[in-house]
Amino acid sequence: MSKSPKLQVKRHAERGKYGRDDIISILDDGYLVHIGFFEDGLPYVMPTLYARIGEMVYIHAATGNRLMGLLRNGETVCLEVTLADGIVLADSLFSHSMNYRSVMLFGQGQEVKGLDEKSEILIAFSEKLVPGRGQDARVPSKAELKQTGLFGFNIDTASAKVRTGPPSTDEGESYQSSWTGVIPLKEQWGTPIPSERCSNAPLPKYIHEHLEKSK
Amino acid sequence: MSKSPKLQVKRHAERGKYGRDDIISILDDGYLVHIGFFEDGLPYVMPTLYARIGEMVYIHAATGNRLMGLLRNGETVCLEVTLADGIVLADSLFSHSMNYRSVMLFGQGQEVKGLDEKSEILIAFSEKLVPGRGQDARVPSKAELKQTGLFGFNIDTASAKVRTGPPSTDEGESYQSSWTGVIPLKEQWGTPIPSERCSNAPLPKYIHEHLEKSK
Repeated sequence: MSKSPKLQVKRHAERGKYGRDDIISILDDGYLVHIGFFEDGLPYVMPTLYARIGEMVYIHAATGNRLMGLLRNGETVCLEVTLADGIVLADSLFSHSMNYRSVMLFGQGQEVKGLDEKSEILIAFSEKLVPGRGQDARVPSKAELKQTGLFGFNIDTASAKVRTGPPSTDEGESYQSSWTGVIPLKEQWGTPIPSERCSNAPLPKYIHEHLEKSK
Repeated sequence: MSKSPKLQVKRHAERGKYGRDDIISILDDGYLVHIGFFEDGLPYVMPTLYARIGEMVYIHAATGNRLMGLLRNGETVCLEVTLADGIVLADSLFSHSMNYRSVMLFGQGQEVKGLDEKSEILIAFSEKLVPGRGQDARVPSKAELKQTGLFGFNIDTASAKVRTGPPSTDEGESYQSSWTGVIPLKEQWGTPIPSERCSNAPLPKYIHEHLEKSK
């Protein structure tokens, strides 16, 4: 497999249309990234959680995970975040579409190795998912930190692609469907399900507030 | 790039645990697939809509789309569907996790070329997204069918990976966070936004019923 390929990313047409702020806003609205990599003659896609902290997007996995191994070898991977915002219903099936916001970035990943820095980033990572959690749950032990691989990718090579708004009009079209428009999609948090030990414990304020905010 | 690589898919450990019915149920609960492919030395991930019809997962795009080109060349791609079901909060940050259902499949794709068959599948595709839509919107014209590339992938090589349930217990752990459990995640349809022409048109019954069913 070729290392350090030239980043001939074929998204030039969309670049420039969306700037750093758009990219950060999309990344901060998501939590799930699909990582594309190539190994032994096959392209793979692996879903995992991520967090944007400063200029970096971080992902983690067990040290022995094969994606971690590829990253340690300097392989370039593709990170793709898609937020589905709605289904677009047009007069013609051909013009049906989807509203979405997506970010794609290519990078080789920088491994975070120092245990203190690793711990800080993993705590911040949890804070991104549920603000307050990083202070409530037990922080990683030295052994746990050593079992966790952590890589960061700089967002400076990221590009965004977005579709918003109503269906594109089919002017001059003689056929009109009964209804056109957008059915919005939104990911919602449901009612928390406590573990057995916490079946009678009150839900912490920070979780409650996070759920309220996300409504 | 090597064509027809041996499908040495490294998911054997999970195979067998989930059968055809599980795979179909996951595929039918989703609509967004992330496709991994390799081109010019880089791995790419492309999100797109899909529909499972019979034994096949179908995707489509403009005929000239580069993924369509790769598929026409017989390249093997990876299809990955992830349904995020919840965030798992454990006592230790290390044991935090995610509940999800995912399906992965590798394949070269079979192009659907006959215009009648193509039309039938594209209508069925829309029916999967919003049942009833395929009968309401205008079906594709010959010219539109020629502009649309349509590929099917047999699900017989698909494998599933699933995590459900509460956090794994950290027995013997002295630290207990204030709350552990699962915060469910669910994708919800929002209130339909009519296009200008339909601002006073009633929402068709089939759309209303679909939204009610998905609640």
